[in-house]
Amino acid sequence: MTITLDQARTIVDAALEHGTAQGFNPLTVAVLDPGGALVALARQDGSGNLRPDIAVAKAWGVLGMGMTNRAIAARAADSPEFFTSVAALAGGRILSVPGGVFVRATDGTLLGAVGVTGDASLNDEAAAVAGIAAAGLVAQTGAEE
Amino acid sequence: MTITLDQARTIVDAALEHGTAQGFNPLTVAVLDPGGALVALARQDGSGNLRPDIAVAKAWGVLGMGMTNRAIAARAADSPEFFTSVAALAGGRILSVPGGVFVRATDGTLLGAVGVTGDASLNDEAAAVAGIAAAGLVAQTGAEE
Amino acid sequence: MTITLDQARTIVDAALEHGTAQGFNPLTVAVLDPGGALVALARQDGSGNLRPDIAVAKAWGVLGMGMTNRAIAARAADSPEFFTSVAALAGGRILSVPGGVFVRATDGTLLGAVGVTGDASLNDEAAAVAGIAAAGLVAQTGAEE
Amino acid sequence: MTITLDQARTIVDAALEHGTAQGFNPLTVAVLDPGGALVALARQDGSGNLRPDIAVAKAWGVLGMGMTNRAIAARAADSPEFFTSVAALAGGRILSVPGGVFVRATDGTLLGAVGVTGDASLNDEAAAVAGIAAAGLVAQTGAEE
Repeated sequence: MTITLDQARTIVDAALEHGTAQGFNPLTVAVLDPGGALVALARQDGSGNLRPDIAVAKAWGVLGMGMTNRAIAARAADSPEFFTSVAALAGGRILSVPGGVFVRATDGTLLGAVGVTGDASLNDEAAAVAGIAAAGLVAQTGAEE
Repeated sequence: MTITLDQARTIVDAALEHGTAQGFNPLTVAVLDPGGALVALARQDGSGNLRPDIAVAKAWGVLGMGMTNRAIAARAADSPEFFTSVAALAGGRILSVPGGVFVRATDGTLLGAVGVTGDASLNDEAAAVAGIAAAGLVAQTGAEE
Repeated sequence: MTITLDQARTIVDAALEHGTAQGFNPLTVAVLDPGGALVALARQDGSGNLRPDIAVAKAWGVLGMGMTNRAIAARAADSPEFFTSVAALAGGRILSVPGGVFVRATDGTLLGAVGVTGDASLNDEAAAVAGIAAAGLVAQTGAEE
Repeated sequence: MTITLDQARTIVDAALEHGTAQGFNPLTVAVLDPGGALVALARQDGSGNLRPDIAVAKAWGVLGMGMTNRAIAARAADSPEFFTSVAALAGGRILSVPGGVFVRATDGTLLGAVGVTGDASLNDEAAAVAGIAAAGLVAQTGAEE
């Protein structure tokens, strides 16, 4: 199973609306399938040129490691060299800050991941969670653990 | 001036609808700003993993060269090595087949470019043109010349 | 809107003159458009080979992040791994030291960015600011905040 | 010995003036030292985003091979795979079309190379030659052979 384009677009739209309603900086939202390929992306006006890559990287990294950003951050705190190595292996597509969130079906099946960037990391994450909820899917950030 | 997210999303939605209405293979549509950064992207269900990169490349290449895909194809026919060099310089982000279309305002100002991939190139291009028209903007494919 | 070659050349000339008048080490000055493409560059005699890349990177990074070098430095202090990731995503084109300065029109429109390297970072930044002022444009370094 | 910034700027200015006077498309001119590092670059308004890289590549390639573009083209005609290999080794920074020109002092000493792109290759080359002449230096294109 994999996230559908309809689901991805719902997530993107709702995440951006959350950011706008909360007065965030312009956000960029990326939705990836379980293999890490882009399904949908939108970058709000006024965002920097690298934001699409960062949004993708937040999502790609959690799928790449099979670990939430919080778990990646804990590993990086244990071993900074470990993070350096995997970040290089991934061509930079691993972030250790919140904003990359697994998307699961209600039965727990992995459907993909969402990456949001543009504001403070916890706000990015909140927008991702809002987007996933709007699609009727389940968000996994690691904060639940 | 640069394309807005609202305009980009209209283009993406209308291009995908054109493809669906015409019975095309699943399409991927990317909209880039004049500097080549992604503004919006959507990949229809059932598309291959590299399609987002190809859609982006179709648009990035025309912005990079300042030439339509048709003009790039003519240069490549003149000098295949020229194409080899510029494709390497661009990290692969240049295509010489239709599907990358400049987007201009009605006064001619360059707003960005659209890249579509997934069906035969001329069909990809038709979807891009339909999307740009739906946004009330002007498409430049090189076919007009 | 984007910076013109005439404006860029004025910035480069005035920044280099500032450095020479102040007795700085040889400087390299790069002016980029809002998308991050080079518009003008000059490297003073006696400068190292990598200085053009560094000058470009100082400017590209602020455009990529949509943040001044000082803001990038603050993020890096918060999370060194965040900087590792974005530096990798940007191919090294992000610096967290002064010398990359946004260029705006008097009405605030972003026109591009200037990157200077060669002397102490604050001197590099001063040269960039002098160059931008000579072109009648507005410099944004983050020091104003 | 190496080209000075003053010489490089004279070359850039005169090459661009040649293009403007002849009604060429917008040009990009790059001047590199004998080691291939950028000394000066200018991109005329309206040029594509990749043109700075192409201008640099035209000059870098002749310095990299120690051969003019015409000689490189002859090798490529003999062995297309040879060109593919060296283009990959050089990261794309080798072109087989005119527009990359060696710069020598009047006593024959190599000072660097100029790369011009934006119009038809022979016009690019003519602009480079005009620029080098304006600096009182000697241009070597391979057409003399």
